[in-house]
Amino acid sequence: MKIGIIGASGYTGSELIRILLNHKNIELSFISSREHKGKKLFEVFPQFKSLCDLIFEDPSEGDFLKDLDLLFVALPHKSAMTYVKKIYEAGIPVVDLSADCRFSSKEIYTIWYTEHTCPYLLKESVYGLPEVYRDKIKGKRIVANPGCYPTSVIIPLYPIVSQNLIKPFAIVDSKTGVSGAGRKADLSLNFCEVCESIRPYNVFSHRHSPEMEEKLSEIGKENFSIFFTPQLVPLKRGILSSIYVELKNDLKEEKIYEIFLEHFSNEPFVRLFEPGNYPKLSQVCGTNFCDISFKMLKRRLVIFSAIDNLIKGASGQAVQNMNILFGFDEREGLINLTSLG
Amino acid sequence: MKIGIIGASGYTGSELIRILLNHKNIELSFISSREHKGKKLFEVFPQFKSLCDLIFEDPSEGDFLKDLDLLFVALPHKSAMTYVKKIYEAGIPVVDLSADCRFSSKEIYTIWYTEHTCPYLLKESVYGLPEVYRDKIKGKRIVANPGCYPTSVIIPLYPIVSQNLIKPFAIVDSKTGVSGAGRKADLSLNFCEVCESIRPYNVFSHRHSPEMEEKLSEIGKENFSIFFTPQLVPLKRGILSSIYVELKNDLKEEKIYEIFLEHFSNEPFVRLFEPGNYPKLSQVCGTNFCDISFKMLKRRLVIFSAIDNLIKGASGQAVQNMNILFGFDEREGLINLTSLG
Amino acid sequence: MKIGIIGASGYTGSELIRILLNHKNIELSFISSREHKGKKLFEVFPQFKSLCDLIFEDPSEGDFLKDLDLLFVALPHKSAMTYVKKIYEAGIPVVDLSADCRFSSKEIYTIWYTEHTCPYLLKESVYGLPEVYRDKIKGKRIVANPGCYPTSVIIPLYPIVSQNLIKPFAIVDSKTGVSGAGRKADLSLNFCEVCESIRPYNVFSHRHSPEMEEKLSEIGKENFSIFFTPQLVPLKRGILSSIYVELKNDLKEEKIYEIFLEHFSNEPFVRLFEPGNYPKLSQVCGTNFCDISFKMLKRRLVIFSAIDNLIKGASGQAVQNMNILFGFDEREGLINLTSLG
Amino acid sequence: MKIGIIGASGYTGSELIRILLNHKNIELSFISSREHKGKKLFEVFPQFKSLCDLIFEDPSEGDFLKDLDLLFVALPHKSAMTYVKKIYEAGIPVVDLSADCRFSSKEIYTIWYTEHTCPYLLKESVYGLPEVYRDKIKGKRIVANPGCYPTSVIIPLYPIVSQNLIKPFAIVDSKTGVSGAGRKADLSLNFCEVCESIRPYNVFSHRHSPEMEEKLSEIGKENFSIFFTPQLVPLKRGILSSIYVELKNDLKEEKIYEIFLEHFSNEPFVRLFEPGNYPKLSQVCGTNFCDISFKMLKRRLVIFSAIDNLIKGASGQAVQNMNILFGFDEREGLINLTSLG
Repeated sequence: MKIGIIGASGYTGSELIRILLNHKNIELSFISSREHKGKKLFEVFPQFKSLCDLIFEDPSEGDFLKDLDLLFVALPHKSAMTYVKKIYEAGIPVVDLSADCRFSSKEIYTIWYTEHTCPYLLKESVYGLPEVYRDKIKGKRIVANPGCYPTSVIIPLYPIVSQNLIKPFAIVDSKTGVSGAGRKADLSLNFCEVCESIRPYNVFSHRHSPEMEEKLSEIGKENFSIFFTPQLVPLKRGILSSIYVELKNDLKEEKIYEIFLEHFSNEPFVRLFEPGNYPKLSQVCGTNFCDISFKMLKRRLVIFSAIDNLIKGASGQAVQNMNILFGFDEREGLINLTSLG
Repeated sequence: MKIGIIGASGYTGSELIRILLNHKNIELSFISSREHKGKKLFEVFPQFKSLCDLIFEDPSEGDFLKDLDLLFVALPHKSAMTYVKKIYEAGIPVVDLSADCRFSSKEIYTIWYTEHTCPYLLKESVYGLPEVYRDKIKGKRIVANPGCYPTSVIIPLYPIVSQNLIKPFAIVDSKTGVSGAGRKADLSLNFCEVCESIRPYNVFSHRHSPEMEEKLSEIGKENFSIFFTPQLVPLKRGILSSIYVELKNDLKEEKIYEIFLEHFSNEPFVRLFEPGNYPKLSQVCGTNFCDISFKMLKRRLVIFSAIDNLIKGASGQAVQNMNILFGFDEREGLINLTSLG
Repeated sequence: MKIGIIGASGYTGSELIRILLNHKNIELSFISSREHKGKKLFEVFPQFKSLCDLIFEDPSEGDFLKDLDLLFVALPHKSAMTYVKKIYEAGIPVVDLSADCRFSSKEIYTIWYTEHTCPYLLKESVYGLPEVYRDKIKGKRIVANPGCYPTSVIIPLYPIVSQNLIKPFAIVDSKTGVSGAGRKADLSLNFCEVCESIRPYNVFSHRHSPEMEEKLSEIGKENFSIFFTPQLVPLKRGILSSIYVELKNDLKEEKIYEIFLEHFSNEPFVRLFEPGNYPKLSQVCGTNFCDISFKMLKRRLVIFSAIDNLIKGASGQAVQNMNILFGFDEREGLINLTSLG
Repeated sequence: MKIGIIGASGYTGSELIRILLNHKNIELSFISSREHKGKKLFEVFPQFKSLCDLIFEDPSEGDFLKDLDLLFVALPHKSAMTYVKKIYEAGIPVVDLSADCRFSSKEIYTIWYTEHTCPYLLKESVYGLPEVYRDKIKGKRIVANPGCYPTSVIIPLYPIVSQNLIKPFAIVDSKTGVSGAGRKADLSLNFCEVCESIRPYNVFSHRHSPEMEEKLSEIGKENFSIFFTPQLVPLKRGILSSIYVELKNDLKEEKIYEIFLEHFSNEPFVRLFEPGNYPKLSQVCGTNFCDISFKMLKRRLVIFSAIDNLIKGASGQAVQNMNILFGFDEREGLINLTSLG
């Protein structure tokens, strides 16, 4: 299988490269970047020296699609949809890491992002969260890879929302590493502005809120509201979300633990910790795991979930989706990604 | 005025020294540490070289109280109460940075801390949060300096709790720098365990919860519940608290802003930012400020408050209390503490 | 005395503001920034909220010079010289933080920077390193504030170079915090690129090399060579330089310590530590100190010097120069700057 | 092949586990820790949850040696030698990560460490630096894994020392991450003491100096002196060494580059960068690479080398040595370790 990446010069792009180089069933054979066209990969990312000899190509030139069996699109929203359309129309499977195919509703997309120029893609695509939509992913040709924050929120809420155990709203207080903002020059991302600080942003108005609300409303079959507070913290990678919800009826902590346990016991990339045993963010960084724990007090729960925003929150999950599409072992290329501790 | 510090070899102790050295109305003349007895200050804290020639003394030896006009006690709880009692009985004012005199209720103290060996101190002391109890502080001889987290939570909630505008509970998601855990050797505080990570701890069971609940219940005259989630983040100083509350009745965001504005306009160390303009934690680090902002959505508010845990959350507030006790300008020695940006 | 700052929106500008706000003998009355013209200071730097109500002005408009008694110029090189000339010709003292007036030799400036459009300024100015040129500073109207790295290197070398005790070359291995690169959007300064890394840059070819060489050659009266390796490390502030030199003749470690001690004993902002007792960079951060220590082995010395690049390496030293120019206590506004520990 | 680790609860131990879990030719079947005896691996290191079910055993109990084909000893010096002796005498190959078998000279070991209780081990062992001693490693049963700093210094110096191109001394200015100090509770390693700081330690007197000197003297066949300055910087992993040397005779920079290139072209874990293109430390962190570059000025060179202290500087190199001992592909289990960028 020959694989390509459109937009390989960002953090999600380089992380895709890193993961795919160790994947046994495929060969990475095409990477694109308009800005770095003609440069060797290691000139832009020296960490790949001696590991990969690919050269950045310009995806607007030549017929890059021939010979490829699947493409990852790691472009900003809006730029992405044009390529997704092109690839889809060429009959090639595509995993899109942007927001362009994530929504069922074109209207919601338009409100939060921009005009959608090829809305039929929304119907042809599936939301690529394996823990919820694994069976649907298998038959699709467009996988819309979820946002990083929604991944950290929908996975842990799925068992209790799908069983309608909680009131349909959640307060989500998420802390993210700086790589979530992308690989770019930006004063507010300068080391001096980030270190020794924390900064809330887009409070109650982040684009990932409607994504969570649409999916959780589908799952629970009632309108679900999210009060979402993202915060930038001085670390490179990782999201730790504190998710506050309220039970509809009395349930013991042990019972809820059982529900989670039963639900996640077969999930290769979800690890449940016992109440009182909270995930440390670093234990998932560098991995495709979503680590989960919770604590209850008077019908209220706080659920913690920890992911690496670039792996389970982006490129790792994209590869997991590729594995499902191709019928590979879902863990291939991912289970060997381990935390630096 | 001659001032002493019992327990000056921790982070709050060294911060007290730093602040008092630039205070115009007093002279720091006594610092104690059993562990470092006989050592020069700068041998333990080299940053004080050429700034202060004091030597650590053993407070159990000699009559350290004669000649002193006020003492700060910066010891762990339980050790503190013995010294507070001694100082109080010698007729000298004392600002205690421990939890030993913070509670009105001896029973609550006992549940969360330990047996209280001199419970009458609880009656003789005042909770030293100037923004709430300024007038009561003036007439007292024991000031119980508030905990760092409670400072970050009670100040911003005071206007809306005292006016009974919100339902009597709050979800508090706080992020703290590592200095909050004290100056000590501890594997879980080793740089490698803290950097590139976030770690929740004592979830819904932290000792600062009952402190917040007791004071907010007093202020609002109804039982107030706190769901408190502290988290350790990779920074040295600072607490950023996200406080989630729910309005009892509809109110416009502008109206709430006015209430805060009116309330805090004369507070020398509270700075209110407009909705949408959130405090960056670094802007208060190194200062005695508590910066506050909030955002509303559907009757729910998130209020952000940012403090330096060692200054407004400990030593700066202690000096503010001393200024009040002595009738000094409340800002003396504190307004010149500015953020490194 | 009324003071102004041209170019107050960078890190050295905001640090000047911070220091001058606590200076007793002067009033800061003018700050400029073309980019932020018309904005309040705290809109750009929220840490100054409630501390300073100045508004950024455009220095190309109006006669900003009238009423001012001294100006700091905190602009990039080349932009600076135009303003220095204008201020000088208006008869007002100026402290220039750029490189534009640092060199005696116009030719060297041209090689390393750019054409010098008003070379007579080089003759009218003095190199503002008080520990070396204090007496000359007093009579001048233009003070060229030294570079951050040269400050960290020339101060410790002065005693032994002026007494010709070492061979005229030094290997200088310096580590700098990120604020040294200025307040700007730049991918290489993005938190993700800096954290958990170290990066050498401009090795043996940094513009501060000729500045060190010119001054040390003057001091020692023989050509002095510098092999200079600057490295970016993941901290906000501070420079730690390891300076490796070789003695011309045998000398005991104690003798060298005596020479340093004698030389620096009256310097208000130099602190000498005993051999074996090395400065920790954090103990100078936030202060105007230059902390020095050294170790000898077989005629070779390594000398460590630690400064805060934005204070002793820039804005603090600039204020020290102003104090000298005006005959104020040299420590005013600076000795109260203390380390956060 | 069944592999065991004695002393698996430190940072080098957990890193060995991490690497061995992805090694195709072996099975990790024994891990020991007296302190954590009986605990599951993931109770101590939660990052291994769902990846490894081993339980810490007590190596002083039972016959842990039967069934094992090789052991890694990751204990402090002195404790290590007892186990190395036991394993050696049982006829099982051992890779010792301590200093106990690194020296040829028992006397030098005694001066810098402690009495050596089984000095014959020094003769039976080989210094496990594959880039220098690959051929000798093959026939030995005890491999003394090199120190982290010596690894970063001897590899880049080998080509030019073995060809006697430089004068026999080097100034080595090394910056290390905190994991180099081991996994322990220590005030000086507390996050607050390390962050925003740099600290030189053991200047000209670090135990790794004699290790470098002994090996470089052997390689160059003349006494080699090291002036070694280690410094603790605020990062978790990694060593960046600046190595300053002086050529015996004139040589062009291009010629030296050729010498390095020729020498390292077949080394699987050495990557040479062109002059002017310096390694960023993060590009080797998480990998087994040693990245090298240099710059020349007037017969003096600065050579930069970057390694992950826990991988190429410890556990990765130990596995590389195991691969050589067993005749596996030297890259197995190591080439898939990639940098997080």
